[in-house]
Amino acid sequence: MGQEVPVKRDEIITLDHGSGGLKTKELIEGLFLEMLSNPLLDTLEDSAVFNVNGGRVAFTTDSYVVDPIVFPGGDIGALSVHGTINDLAMKGAWPLALSLGLILEEGLEMKVLERVLDSVARASKEAGVMVATGDTKVVPKGKGDKIFINTTGLGAIPGGIDIGVHRVLPGDVIISSGTIGDHGITILTQREGLKFAGDLKSDSQPLHRLVKGLIEELGEDLHCLRDPTRGGVATVLVEVAERAGVPMEIFEDRLPIREEVRATAELLGLDPLYLANEGKLLCWVPERCSDKALEVMRGYEEGKDAAVIGRVVQGDQGRVVLNTIIGGKRAIFALSGTPLPRIC
Amino acid sequence: MGQEVPVKRDEIITLDHGSGGLKTKELIEGLFLEMLSNPLLDTLEDSAVFNVNGGRVAFTTDSYVVDPIVFPGGDIGALSVHGTINDLAMKGAWPLALSLGLILEEGLEMKVLERVLDSVARASKEAGVMVATGDTKVVPKGKGDKIFINTTGLGAIPGGIDIGVHRVLPGDVIISSGTIGDHGITILTQREGLKFAGDLKSDSQPLHRLVKGLIEELGEDLHCLRDPTRGGVATVLVEVAERAGVPMEIFEDRLPIREEVRATAELLGLDPLYLANEGKLLCWVPERCSDKALEVMRGYEEGKDAAVIGRVVQGDQGRVVLNTIIGGKRAIFALSGTPLPRIC
Repeated sequence: MGQEVPVKRDEIITLDHGSGGLKTKELIEGLFLEMLSNPLLDTLEDSAVFNVNGGRVAFTTDSYVVDPIVFPGGDIGALSVHGTINDLAMKGAWPLALSLGLILEEGLEMKVLERVLDSVARASKEAGVMVATGDTKVVPKGKGDKIFINTTGLGAIPGGIDIGVHRVLPGDVIISSGTIGDHGITILTQREGLKFAGDLKSDSQPLHRLVKGLIEELGEDLHCLRDPTRGGVATVLVEVAERAGVPMEIFEDRLPIREEVRATAELLGLDPLYLANEGKLLCWVPERCSDKALEVMRGYEEGKDAAVIGRVVQGDQGRVVLNTIIGGKRAIFALSGTPLPRIC
Repeated sequence: MGQEVPVKRDEIITLDHGSGGLKTKELIEGLFLEMLSNPLLDTLEDSAVFNVNGGRVAFTTDSYVVDPIVFPGGDIGALSVHGTINDLAMKGAWPLALSLGLILEEGLEMKVLERVLDSVARASKEAGVMVATGDTKVVPKGKGDKIFINTTGLGAIPGGIDIGVHRVLPGDVIISSGTIGDHGITILTQREGLKFAGDLKSDSQPLHRLVKGLIEELGEDLHCLRDPTRGGVATVLVEVAERAGVPMEIFEDRLPIREEVRATAELLGLDPLYLANEGKLLCWVPERCSDKALEVMRGYEEGKDAAVIGRVVQGDQGRVVLNTIIGGKRAIFALSGTPLPRIC
């Protein structure tokens, strides 16, 4: 055990604590785990996994506070369904039921609520999962912002499947199921009222079918899945590398990024590696399974742009290196100091 | 089928839509059920019940937006744990896991968050249930109000237990597990900065142990359980009577109400029957089981003031009548027109 230098805790909550980056990590590991520690929560995976009636289930929660609530490619309703289904899927679980908790701001137009609920209904129907239970609260004008949604999901994990950071190994390849940065750049440009040429839209979509396909073809060779939401691909890679305790490298020239996203991010001085995604996953499998995994993913519309973006290498330090297009190497860190608030 | 006159839907959300009374019902039955209808949601019970791996589970969600977040007898942290455990317990379920979704307002003092999390930790530990998964979002100052909490719960229902409105029958007695109105009056006086003599405090407490005791002693004679939170005892009675399609009567002189609550409610012009409770249940059992049920409840600290407050009578209309102390009869309706917002 090395010596640990205690970090001075912030005295107030800032937007950065919700960014999904370093400050979020500090809050969760420094405060939440300290106070609520238990074997399920301590795994810090996208879903908790435990036994119910002799079989394993996944259980996950997310609150959605995205601003604006309607955006190209989706809205807060569909996003809340997709996001929670995806967190279940990252543990290999098939969604059984969702809950829907709404916090509405007084003065919200009923037609906006109707639109959001319609979107929840369509997204859950399309994904084949029921909204089993719900709750609605109203807060006075100026004490909320239109609509916040919590969706909590319960899913069933097939027997023999064990997907998680603990199974990441040197020799694994890292595959992205598609293009990166689409959701984050769309929300940011919408919020700032920026108009660009091109067709930016969120990638909000459910991934449980694609994951089911991967499980069926790869079985226990499917080592780890993560959806790079807040904090983006970079932050997720750093988290997984740190927790697995192994180094990873990714290749800039292999990152699937749509040209509109790349150009807009460049204009805004943002790195697509840190932009949120809401319909993509990163997948770790042994190199020998690489082609098979790509083939499976590309068989689904939601995985048509799947690409190997990197690999896990030998070593005992959980760090991530980017091999740049011009042949250099750059260390990748978790999102820090540039909060991109209310992205989901 | 009688003719139905379509109700004109409100064009904006008001605080009354969150009161737990008629407007909430209108929103849920007129909009949510219309758009999201499915066999689980349509029961409108406190928890959805379905099969997982061959056994039945209960699944429930609640968001907590109580103002103030700290009050005599509890705070938003403990309340969110107790409230969700109680919604599970109303279907006879033992809590297996909770999720915790936080929406924090920028500028929240860290020590307030620490206090609330400490309260979540103590309440969940005391109740013997784990917070298995969590999520934290931050919204800009003025777009939230300190802290909102969503807790979603998963519970296991013992074999052979079927508790619900569909089992309420003429001949059932209605038992309250304790005094009514304590939580509601406490929050309202705190919020208004009112100081009264006496010792008002919230009844926030978990009821799963008491329910387990009832199940063990009464088995399938336990017909229905409801926790009278938003909208109070009156609104819950009306809901159950309407859904069961049978009339009920209650007796004013049997309502267990603490003297301080009665006096304060009178001063404020409020009826304790409409005040929220956060650690009480109403229970429907056949009259022959009445003494047994009371004995079981009184064996628990949380049921020490249990009392029979009414009964289900013969008839085919779901209405509720109060027999007053002075010998009159008064029809009881759901909460309407006097929103008591942010009570939980």
